[in-house]
Amino acid sequence: MPVRLDTRDPDFDSRFAALLGAKREAAADVEAAVRAIVDDVRARGDAALVELTEKFDRLELPAGAAGLRVTADEIAAAVAACPPEDVAALTLARDRIEAYHRRQIPADQRFTDALGVELGYRWTPVEAAGLYVPGGTAAYPSSVLMNAVPAKVAGVARLVMVVPAPGGRLAPLVLAAAHLAGVDEIYRVGGAQAVAALAWGTQTIAPVDKIVGPGNAYVAAAKRIVFGKVGIDMIAGPSEVLIVADGTANPEWIAADLLAQAEHDTAAQSILITTDAALAAAVEKAVESQLATLPRETIAGASWRDHGAVILVETLDRAVALADAVAAEHLELAVADPEPLAARIRHAGAIFVGAHTPEAIGDYVAGSNHVLPTARSARFSSGLGVLDFMKRTSLLRCGPDQLAALGPAAVTLARAEGLEAHARSVALRLASTAGAS
Amino acid sequence: MPVRLDTRDPDFDSRFAALLGAKREAAADVEAAVRAIVDDVRARGDAALVELTEKFDRLELPAGAAGLRVTADEIAAAVAACPPEDVAALTLARDRIEAYHRRQIPADQRFTDALGVELGYRWTPVEAAGLYVPGGTAAYPSSVLMNAVPAKVAGVARLVMVVPAPGGRLAPLVLAAAHLAGVDEIYRVGGAQAVAALAWGTQTIAPVDKIVGPGNAYVAAAKRIVFGKVGIDMIAGPSEVLIVADGTANPEWIAADLLAQAEHDTAAQSILITTDAALAAAVEKAVESQLATLPRETIAGASWRDHGAVILVETLDRAVALADAVAAEHLELAVADPEPLAARIRHAGAIFVGAHTPEAIGDYVAGSNHVLPTARSARFSSGLGVLDFMKRTSLLRCGPDQLAALGPAAVTLARAEGLEAHARSVALRLASTAGAS
Repeated sequence: MPVRLDTRDPDFDSRFAALLGAKREAAADVEAAVRAIVDDVRARGDAALVELTEKFDRLELPAGAAGLRVTADEIAAAVAACPPEDVAALTLARDRIEAYHRRQIPADQRFTDALGVELGYRWTPVEAAGLYVPGGTAAYPSSVLMNAVPAKVAGVARLVMVVPAPGGRLAPLVLAAAHLAGVDEIYRVGGAQAVAALAWGTQTIAPVDKIVGPGNAYVAAAKRIVFGKVGIDMIAGPSEVLIVADGTANPEWIAADLLAQAEHDTAAQSILITTDAALAAAVEKAVESQLATLPRETIAGASWRDHGAVILVETLDRAVALADAVAAEHLELAVADPEPLAARIRHAGAIFVGAHTPEAIGDYVAGSNHVLPTARSARFSSGLGVLDFMKRTSLLRCGPDQLAALGPAAVTLARAEGLEAHARSVALRLASTAGAS
Repeated sequence: MPVRLDTRDPDFDSRFAALLGAKREAAADVEAAVRAIVDDVRARGDAALVELTEKFDRLELPAGAAGLRVTADEIAAAVAACPPEDVAALTLARDRIEAYHRRQIPADQRFTDALGVELGYRWTPVEAAGLYVPGGTAAYPSSVLMNAVPAKVAGVARLVMVVPAPGGRLAPLVLAAAHLAGVDEIYRVGGAQAVAALAWGTQTIAPVDKIVGPGNAYVAAAKRIVFGKVGIDMIAGPSEVLIVADGTANPEWIAADLLAQAEHDTAAQSILITTDAALAAAVEKAVESQLATLPRETIAGASWRDHGAVILVETLDRAVALADAVAAEHLELAVADPEPLAARIRHAGAIFVGAHTPEAIGDYVAGSNHVLPTARSARFSSGLGVLDFMKRTSLLRCGPDQLAALGPAAVTLARAEGLEAHARSVALRLASTAGAS
């Protein structure tokens, strides 16, 4: 039974706060174990990788580290083994993701200010990036595209994918997605050991500069540990959807969207906020009936029962305030006039505007990225994009006149901070320039 | 004695790699202690803050947590106590930093593709940000401006500064900088406890969404721990400068710039790369003579002796490759024709172009940000800027026709991934639309 709230209830605020604050994932304390794995890979390289892969993935590597790399033949065979309609759909997705992300390529700036100081900045791509792809049932080809395509659009020259192959199995469609996205190297290795290899490098896997992609608690802990040595993307938490609906919404569609989120994970969260009590009741009923025939009924049912919520509000204004407080990864606006509402939302990973935009369209083929900030982190972070694979270098140029104009203030501040060598580096030039003129 | 390398030496590559890999800071293992402090503040709020402040900063707070906030009267008194020329220089710096960062405000996008799908994204500011400012000798008013001004330019409504007041002392110029930058709240609290308070909130300090600013090992560890609950900026390491110079460079100026970096910290690093052996010798001599009269001679001398390096190269081409390998926080190009060189550099926090652009100009008054990626992290990260205080929300809108065009591919991919509820959320709408037409 999902939580039912009504903004008119006297205890609404505290119950809503409890909903926001509820822990949906047990934080497994894997820190010490992960640190040992990272240190081992850093110290012993390939030898550690091979041993850990045999141990955790039950994958024998008779040729040792030479067997880690997935070969071009294996990739070609995987592509050939995929149903052609799946490859066609992936190709459509790839093309649309690429077109969308090309618009994110940032512009450089170079300008001269009133004093004649030349200022600006320049964006350049990260040279090498690593993409973690989970194995088993969580190996989603769509996620490969969503992580790899922005890297390639950014201009990353070397894009390395790591994916565990438990018992030797790799999903063909995952390899096909990597191939379509232009991934340069693929290694059958996963867990904290794969993250460590990407960060520190081994004899077989050259190190990268940035690591992205989702993973379990071990992978997340490893990313946190190597952060600083390399860049990382966000630490992903359980996924969520918030749907704001009025009386015009189709309860069957809303129920389907709530369940699409819920089927990901028992820790996923689906929330409906509506002005219409009859719709709320109809949606709850539709969820129960749709659940009955869902292959992942157990997962989706647990998510809906344990973390689902239906919130009745008196006005859509109130819905906006609540949506900002939730700062949902996915926000659907299934209302008669969604644009004014969309314009007022401040915190959300992605907004799906209007009744004909189910989140699943954004998950696969719209072109926007489905790697979005979870667990209220849309308050301070963005979905994955081209900027995650680029960095900005400042450029600054003074001539003697500009140094004469700005230098004295720099000298004053340097001395106020007790940094005399800073002051002298400017003052020496000022003295020399004054002497020359 | 700095390391002396020459690209013609047979062992150059290994010695250069050793220079890059050398650890300049002992990584204090404060993790467990910091975790206890963070947990304590999270559990007990103000009471823990007051106790920890008394303990670590030797600061009695007779009024308890009510004494944490720095009052408007105290701030006004601090501004009045500063030398007017210092305040004038800070004001010039503030204005230039603001003008530079206004150019970083990103543009939103909204467009309609060939299928009629409406796509785009919108940037919005983080609502509340926290700025950590170290106490004691490392309390730099210029750093307050560099962290606070971009937040205000981004549109952050609530900007909170925390600064330890060891023995009750706060630097007046730090408070003046906060005032000039538009900081909204200031609390006299520091260390891991201040970071925990910003992340989780206490009765007195409301939580923020993002925490920026430099700090010691305790502060860095605390930021790493709260990352995810809030956003953080980079984990700053020891600072460095790399100067590329040819025979036209003035050895006294270059020596002064190397020492300006070295005086920060014994772990700071100053590297000269030059094509001219005579210049190298002259610079080393000038460093020794300038050191003799430097107030921070002990610190700068230790940094230069332990981490300094002078590298002779045969060509400036080679200097570009080495500079990219170093990926320095600060890169000065003191050569006759610096622009072509600047254009070829791929990895650097900031480039100071030409002989009249000492790094200290960028530290204070140029307008660009002096919070830059250290310890080779310019390979994957950027200096602080407006984007660090904003986040991007994707926008997506389909109508029935767009869903009809894209929906089948989404259904195919959802089923390929075993996510039937995703498929149904699209298929239900397709069926209904097909029926309606």
